[in-house]
Amino acid sequence: MRDCITTAMTLPISLDDVLAARDRIAPWLTPTPLRNYPELDAAIGGVRILVKHENHQPTNAFKIRNAMSALTALSQEQRNRGVIGATRGNHGLGLAYAGQALGIPVTVVVPFGNNADKNSGMRALGARLIEHGDDYDASVAEADRLCRDDGLTLIHSTNNRDILSGAATITLEVLDQANDLDAMVLALGGGSQAVGAITVLSASRPNVRVFAVQAEGAPTGFESWKAGKPVPRIAPHTVADGIATGSTYEMTFPTLRDGLSGFVLVSDSDIIDATRILMRCTHNLVEPAGAAGLAGLVKLREELAGKTVCVVISGGNIDEETLRKVFQ
Amino acid sequence: MRDCITTAMTLPISLDDVLAARDRIAPWLTPTPLRNYPELDAAIGGVRILVKHENHQPTNAFKIRNAMSALTALSQEQRNRGVIGATRGNHGLGLAYAGQALGIPVTVVVPFGNNADKNSGMRALGARLIEHGDDYDASVAEADRLCRDDGLTLIHSTNNRDILSGAATITLEVLDQANDLDAMVLALGGGSQAVGAITVLSASRPNVRVFAVQAEGAPTGFESWKAGKPVPRIAPHTVADGIATGSTYEMTFPTLRDGLSGFVLVSDSDIIDATRILMRCTHNLVEPAGAAGLAGLVKLREELAGKTVCVVISGGNIDEETLRKVFQ
Repeated sequence: MRDCITTAMTLPISLDDVLAARDRIAPWLTPTPLRNYPELDAAIGGVRILVKHENHQPTNAFKIRNAMSALTALSQEQRNRGVIGATRGNHGLGLAYAGQALGIPVTVVVPFGNNADKNSGMRALGARLIEHGDDYDASVAEADRLCRDDGLTLIHSTNNRDILSGAATITLEVLDQANDLDAMVLALGGGSQAVGAITVLSASRPNVRVFAVQAEGAPTGFESWKAGKPVPRIAPHTVADGIATGSTYEMTFPTLRDGLSGFVLVSDSDIIDATRILMRCTHNLVEPAGAAGLAGLVKLREELAGKTVCVVISGGNIDEETLRKVFQ
Repeated sequence: MRDCITTAMTLPISLDDVLAARDRIAPWLTPTPLRNYPELDAAIGGVRILVKHENHQPTNAFKIRNAMSALTALSQEQRNRGVIGATRGNHGLGLAYAGQALGIPVTVVVPFGNNADKNSGMRALGARLIEHGDDYDASVAEADRLCRDDGLTLIHSTNNRDILSGAATITLEVLDQANDLDAMVLALGGGSQAVGAITVLSASRPNVRVFAVQAEGAPTGFESWKAGKPVPRIAPHTVADGIATGSTYEMTFPTLRDGLSGFVLVSDSDIIDATRILMRCTHNLVEPAGAAGLAGLVKLREELAGKTVCVVISGGNIDEETLRKVFQ
């Protein structure tokens, strides 16, 4: 826990890695807008909010940065053989999109009962889709098995240095776009966004604080952070499927433990409220995980009073059923 | 009516005007994405669709181009005195945003009972908001009166050459972004988008055809085009408030009459369906007027079979009530 990033930390990636990732993805992805909405400021109160629009990405989610960073870093031989990843949606959409752009065969493994919209989106981008197991962890295990059998390169959604470097490019862009910035409040699944932010800020703007947010129904990262060490898996149940993570990850946990200034939990009801507020004030389609950062900021309002704070609309891939829930 | 733009036409603006507008707005607005969605192509069938994302603009609507083009063209004296415009929403949001960016006082006149979200959006951007009259035409008359009394410059949403030049920059960008293009299918309110497209295409890609779309409940433009001359005002009633126009305009009608390759009407039910399809396949928030182009393309499917066609999501400013209607 820290007030500003001054302590020595174990970082899985360096600023140079992030700059290299930025150069690799630049031909494929244009910077996303960072915007202030006076109506959103008024709705939340007491904080100046900068909204980073990762929902404007081609796959409507920041994970395209991660996938593009990882796939552009592969050797020609790896590209020819193809890649595989386990996903609930946005990571797989990123892999499928990047694979199609770069001519790399992509296989994605999803659990049975996965969001049908996301499955058809991945197929439409040319990915081979395999349904396996009852949850994400079972899909990971199957992807692990297949990558050995078929000679594919496994692209883990978190435990991969190029994935983390890709996510860190968000913060590089924010620093280019923001005249002033006091904090970032970031929804946390595996931790790529937050670790990316801590990496970039510790190297260039150590007085900018990073806060993480998880759903009360998917609190493994939070509980581990509080305990100072990874706690056993807690089965996730939250409307915010993009951060429905039951695990911590070796490549991100130490940095989160040392680098975060705070960590809050929000209820599904908080997340639904924040989703509705973001849609009303920014007129963008927002998935619940993409509003979790704002829900966390509401909880941190007193601590961040008078500050300029960045939240990231990490994705816009909401399905019709959830959308109806938001507007009922 | 035409198959390709070869006949001499009366154009209210030139390609040079459009290039100048592009240079004036470039410091303020970044190009919006043009994207192909395999799922959208599959949902419509038989056509390759390029989606121009004007909903990504800062005010979530293409009209910011028009307003920024018009306000950057003013003299310093005009800027100091301020501007006024009548609006139902997106034109006023554009004026308010551009005025705030450029330090120009902005007054907008809206009819009583105008969309509350749009009113608060304009106020949040610093505009002085005056409610007057029962419909848009009454607001126009009031704006006309006030601009004379107060020495303000009136910025009409259609009858203004800099407005048209701003709208035309959409097509300039599309030509930069599209490798091939056979047609554009554009929702039509006052006609700035369509006249802009005809201007740019007639100068540089005369084989690309332009089609217009109006709502069955707001068909004055369509009926006038069919008659070859402006018909009397038809009071508009459509869910697509962005194209709820009851008039034709002297600065756009002659070009529409001579330059359009076709014109179709769509029902509100067609528009609602297209709104839902666009949201599902692109995961962007879309207002009904922003989906009218796609609804028109559905009607033109046979005529455009096998072609590459651009539709513009002209805006994303949908309110909660309409959103509920779309998803019920």
